[in-house]
Amino acid sequence: MIAIVPVDGLPEIEPGADIGALVAAAVELDDGDVVVVAQKIVSKAEGRVVHLDDVEASERARELAGEWTDARELEVILRESARVVRSRNALVIAETSHGFVCASAGVDHSNAPSPHTLVLLPVDPDASARAIRDSIRIHSGRDVAVVVTDSFGRPFRKGTTDVAIGVAGLAPLRDLRGTPDRAGTLLRSTQVALADEIAAAADLVRAGKDDGRPVVVVRGLEPTGDGTAADLVMPPDRDLFR
Amino acid sequence: MIAIVPVDGLPEIEPGADIGALVAAAVELDDGDVVVVAQKIVSKAEGRVVHLDDVEASERARELAGEWTDARELEVILRESARVVRSRNALVIAETSHGFVCASAGVDHSNAPSPHTLVLLPVDPDASARAIRDSIRIHSGRDVAVVVTDSFGRPFRKGTTDVAIGVAGLAPLRDLRGTPDRAGTLLRSTQVALADEIAAAADLVRAGKDDGRPVVVVRGLEPTGDGTAADLVMPPDRDLFR
Repeated sequence: MIAIVPVDGLPEIEPGADIGALVAAAVELDDGDVVVVAQKIVSKAEGRVVHLDDVEASERARELAGEWTDARELEVILRESARVVRSRNALVIAETSHGFVCASAGVDHSNAPSPHTLVLLPVDPDASARAIRDSIRIHSGRDVAVVVTDSFGRPFRKGTTDVAIGVAGLAPLRDLRGTPDRAGTLLRSTQVALADEIAAAADLVRAGKDDGRPVVVVRGLEPTGDGTAADLVMPPDRDLFR
Repeated sequence: MIAIVPVDGLPEIEPGADIGALVAAAVELDDGDVVVVAQKIVSKAEGRVVHLDDVEASERARELAGEWTDARELEVILRESARVVRSRNALVIAETSHGFVCASAGVDHSNAPSPHTLVLLPVDPDASARAIRDSIRIHSGRDVAVVVTDSFGRPFRKGTTDVAIGVAGLAPLRDLRGTPDRAGTLLRSTQVALADEIAAAADLVRAGKDDGRPVVVVRGLEPTGDGTAADLVMPPDRDLFR
């Protein structure tokens, strides 16, 4: 059995907050737990917040924004984009510096500190995950894995699912290549995106984005191996859709 | 807390098997449980199995198969495809009759009854989910939701995640549109693909595809509403990637 346990009682996260220390103080952890942390609080702790008043919109941002939205928001999205993959009516699907393909290059104004601020993705979410993992080790003595998550849309399907954008202490891909299945056939080229499935599972305990449950513990999985969320990015030469 | 509990002790599924009755006999269910059933056993129970010896490859199947694979397998994939979305080296990403976009139109030879057989997706996986739900109701008296799942790859990201291809007894999309977030801003156009997150969560208890855990119970979620997995298909006119 696997248990998905929300961590309650965390304070509002301020810039400079030590999330690992706060988590260790809020919940009794076990070795082998996976601590799932929403990107939003990681970004806030790391000061990845932009005030719209400090942004001047470029010509391209004004074009993309049209009459649909604040051109300064598009400007921030473009700055966070390595490449615009698709756009329509001020909706921009972009590839970020990390290689993630997602709406608005991960820039979000829901749950931002104020209506005039935007929250950006962490500069290096794998490093964020490692730092939280190390801090939990220091403050609780526990050896946990950490997954930093964000809600991404997907081509072809409606709705977002939470995915891993930062990973520490587990192998994000479960490799089934060459594993004989029950009928004895060799499975061809199959990997399961374990870290993404962990991210999705953790999101199940959130009734809504207003519920203040940015940290969730997934217990009983006892993951092995190591790796980063960068391992989950499909290399462009293997990607049939990029 | 949400618990993800594998159901052990199910027999090998034969054509004509009543999966709902078998699940009700194998596990003590509660009202509000979500019973997650792997597509493979649903297809087997529904006789959606093709023997390669009964298939003759068309010219197009031979072209796509090239020297990489058995052209009869490509023939079956093409028959299951409403449209080929991408192809490269005998790998076909297709849109199925249900509107799902996935590798090989969901045709799978892992865990097939023999190396010479292929397993197809159910004809109507939402109807399959409803039938399993009704049968569980009849045999256990419990009011559960049912999600039929398959492992799909995704553009841009490596690895498969399990997604919902059939749903009964829950609303597959959790609607956050208009829900005020903690800072009081209105969230714009956000829906969470709850049924896909349930599918992904259930897959966490499978160590590998050879582990014989086609049924998993997700307990503690107590989902509401109703709908089908068809609701998760992005309408082509809204899809930036189709």
